[in-house]
Amino acid sequence: MKQKYLLSTYKRQEVCFERGDNATLCDSEGKEYIDFAAGVAVCSVGHGNCRLARAISDQAAKILHVSNLYRIEPQEECARRIVELSGYDMRCFFGNSGTEANEGAIKIARKYGERDGSIKRYKIITLENSFHGRTITALKATGQASKHDYFGPYPDGFVYAANVEEIESLIDETTVAVMIELVQGEGGVQPLDKQKVQNLSALLKSKDILLIVDEVQTGIYRCGSFLASHYYGITPDVITLAKGLGGGVPIGVVMTRLKEIFSYGDHGSTFGGNYLSTVAANEVLDILEAYNKSGEMMEHQNYFETSLKSFALHYPDIFTERVGIGMMQGLRVIDSEVLSKIIDSAFEIGVLVIKSGRNTLRFVPPLTISKSEMDEGFRRLNSAMQHG
Amino acid sequence: MKQKYLLSTYKRQEVCFERGDNATLCDSEGKEYIDFAAGVAVCSVGHGNCRLARAISDQAAKILHVSNLYRIEPQEECARRIVELSGYDMRCFFGNSGTEANEGAIKIARKYGERDGSIKRYKIITLENSFHGRTITALKATGQASKHDYFGPYPDGFVYAANVEEIESLIDETTVAVMIELVQGEGGVQPLDKQKVQNLSALLKSKDILLIVDEVQTGIYRCGSFLASHYYGITPDVITLAKGLGGGVPIGVVMTRLKEIFSYGDHGSTFGGNYLSTVAANEVLDILEAYNKSGEMMEHQNYFETSLKSFALHYPDIFTERVGIGMMQGLRVIDSEVLSKIIDSAFEIGVLVIKSGRNTLRFVPPLTISKSEMDEGFRRLNSAMQHG
Ligand SMILES: Cc1ncc(COP(=O)(O)O)c(C=O)c1O
Ligand SMILES: Cc1ncc(COP(=O)(O)O)c(C=O)c1O
Repeated sequence: MKQKYLLSTYKRQEVCFERGDNATLCDSEGKEYIDFAAGVAVCSVGHGNCRLARAISDQAAKILHVSNLYRIEPQEECARRIVELSGYDMRCFFGNSGTEANEGAIKIARKYGERDGSIKRYKIITLENSFHGRTITALKATGQASKHDYFGPYPDGFVYAANVEEIESLIDETTVAVMIELVQGEGGVQPLDKQKVQNLSALLKSKDILLIVDEVQTGIYRCGSFLASHYYGITPDVITLAKGLGGGVPIGVVMTRLKEIFSYGDHGSTFGGNYLSTVAANEVLDILEAYNKSGEMMEHQNYFETSLKSFALHYPDIFTERVGIGMMQGLRVIDSEVLSKIIDSAFEIGVLVIKSGRNTLRFVPPLTISKSEMDEGFRRLNSAMQHG
Repeated sequence: MKQKYLLSTYKRQEVCFERGDNATLCDSEGKEYIDFAAGVAVCSVGHGNCRLARAISDQAAKILHVSNLYRIEPQEECARRIVELSGYDMRCFFGNSGTEANEGAIKIARKYGERDGSIKRYKIITLENSFHGRTITALKATGQASKHDYFGPYPDGFVYAANVEEIESLIDETTVAVMIELVQGEGGVQPLDKQKVQNLSALLKSKDILLIVDEVQTGIYRCGSFLASHYYGITPDVITLAKGLGGGVPIGVVMTRLKEIFSYGDHGSTFGGNYLSTVAANEVLDILEAYNKSGEMMEHQNYFETSLKSFALHYPDIFTERVGIGMMQGLRVIDSEVLSKIIDSAFEIGVLVIKSGRNTLRFVPPLTISKSEMDEGFRRLNSAMQHG
């Protein structure tokens, strides 16, 4: 039991994967799994992607990292790519995770509040059932009471709205920002209502309150468009990205229209924006942009959604609702025990699916998953349901 | 100017490196630099290291990342290696940076304080001129007033001691931990006094207060021994690592003797401990362990220290003191303007050296730097001093 050297933060499935090919993983015994989880929405271009592996390999032979005290060309290129794909007039800062990206966003908001007017504005409104990360401050930004145990004192200045409508009533003169996921990834793959989000966006603009959109899980084509913000038709002030961007290489980004918000020394990261991560991200963006332009991405997404719907239809007593957008999908399960059983039987039979929130079966496969992998995955899921 | 897509957090030298070979970097114009900075103590096995590049390349072809909901063998192996090399009976958690490692350490301390006794203990004493990272809480842990602007409200519970001796007087019934760097990396490459640290360690044990040692910069043989804690002859309760561990691949670790401190769900990281980073770290540890055992590491360190001393001796009016341990060295410069000039002329002539604190010229080269690279680097530095 080699896990004896690890702190027990995860209950792990007893399996060791050795290699992967797109949405198919192979464990040390040679058993194959269809991966509908993608490392929780990380492996956007699949496992063992040749182009990504080649880009990483070429770069590793040359240079992995230098300090941000020197220019790093692929970092500049990555920032340009992200900004152009976003269509927003913004600038980027690179960190190494979703949590770090969100810490950057919170710092941006608070500095914005500092500079503006005589009363310091610092309050950030977030939503119940949100998830924004694991540092002390990102935990406090997370609107789940269970995440606020043990690790205090937490920083003041976070308040939680039960839903989008409630946000307005929580705004006061110290409010500087609202931070939301457009589809709550850990909170049950729950999309917010489009019209309500647009109304919120307009309201915040009128009050000079920043809209921070946490696209750590929804971004990088996960919900069809490059950003879920596009699908929602909004222009946020600050956006965070991570998971899918590096295709499995650690990277996080905070981008903002407040181009001059930081001065030298206000923020930093030793590894952030290094050659390895940004070369990987550039390759991922190349792959996905072409995949999107060719129409294949949309076609595969539609195929996935159709397959998922018809799968769910067979079990109306178990799945009460389908939720989600694009390649970020969920099925609400009648209860959480049944959900755990489904996940375990799926694992036994060779499909990786994961839980979100209390009772949602989550599907966040590689964006490049093939139709035959989807077919095989759902075929196996059907058998898991019948024999599980 | 492609930097227009980046938030301006760094004042960057106008250079783009294209490839590297051990401690030699080559820019896009073909100019060569001797790298005495190593990405600020990151590139422990040098640039373009064949063994590390091969390990990364082989792994990238197989699998980069899966969720921590499944076992990840190289992560388990990496934890085992680190624990065994440390000689401490500890367990590890993996994140993606030094900051994330320190957030983990702070969470461990605060949870420890929660469980212990009826008064919650939460106060953490850190040192003036320390540096612990860039998240809101790590900034607050950092004992530099300039780091506490703009981004508040900060979490309560950090107090700063002017020096090791002062720590005792700051302890009260709410104190749960003391967090120190043994050699302050950003605070002027300033080693703490060995005897005072040992006394502190004994005092804290007697009071059941945790000793957290931030080895983000000092660890992974940077100061000669695997951990600076070994050199100081202490057994900390919590240790954090990052920089040199991945040889340029983002990784951070918090390790603790409090093996059961976390329960499932208390902490986490999407990317933390992924295949890519931990395979890289395992290779780095293999390379450095062999290098150390062969006696070469020590020999090169001595050679570096001797070269640095004789370099400094030529300029008694400029360098007032040599500080540091092993491959983490500094020269105190009479004033900060002279320091900036030295760094700029060195850069012009092809040597990368960096600043630490207000007036320290910092040397943190790759641990594997060759003697001829050292010779060439100091030869160039001499010319920079004479003609700069
Ligand atoms: C919406 C959202 N924000 C932030 C995070 C934290 O990202 P990371 O685990 O990379 O720190 C997550 C991770 O699941 C997430 O889903
Ligand atoms: C001692 C120490 N702790 C923490 C950090 C923060 O590490 P990172 O930049 O990887 O987040 C640094 C970075 O310089 C450091 O030197």
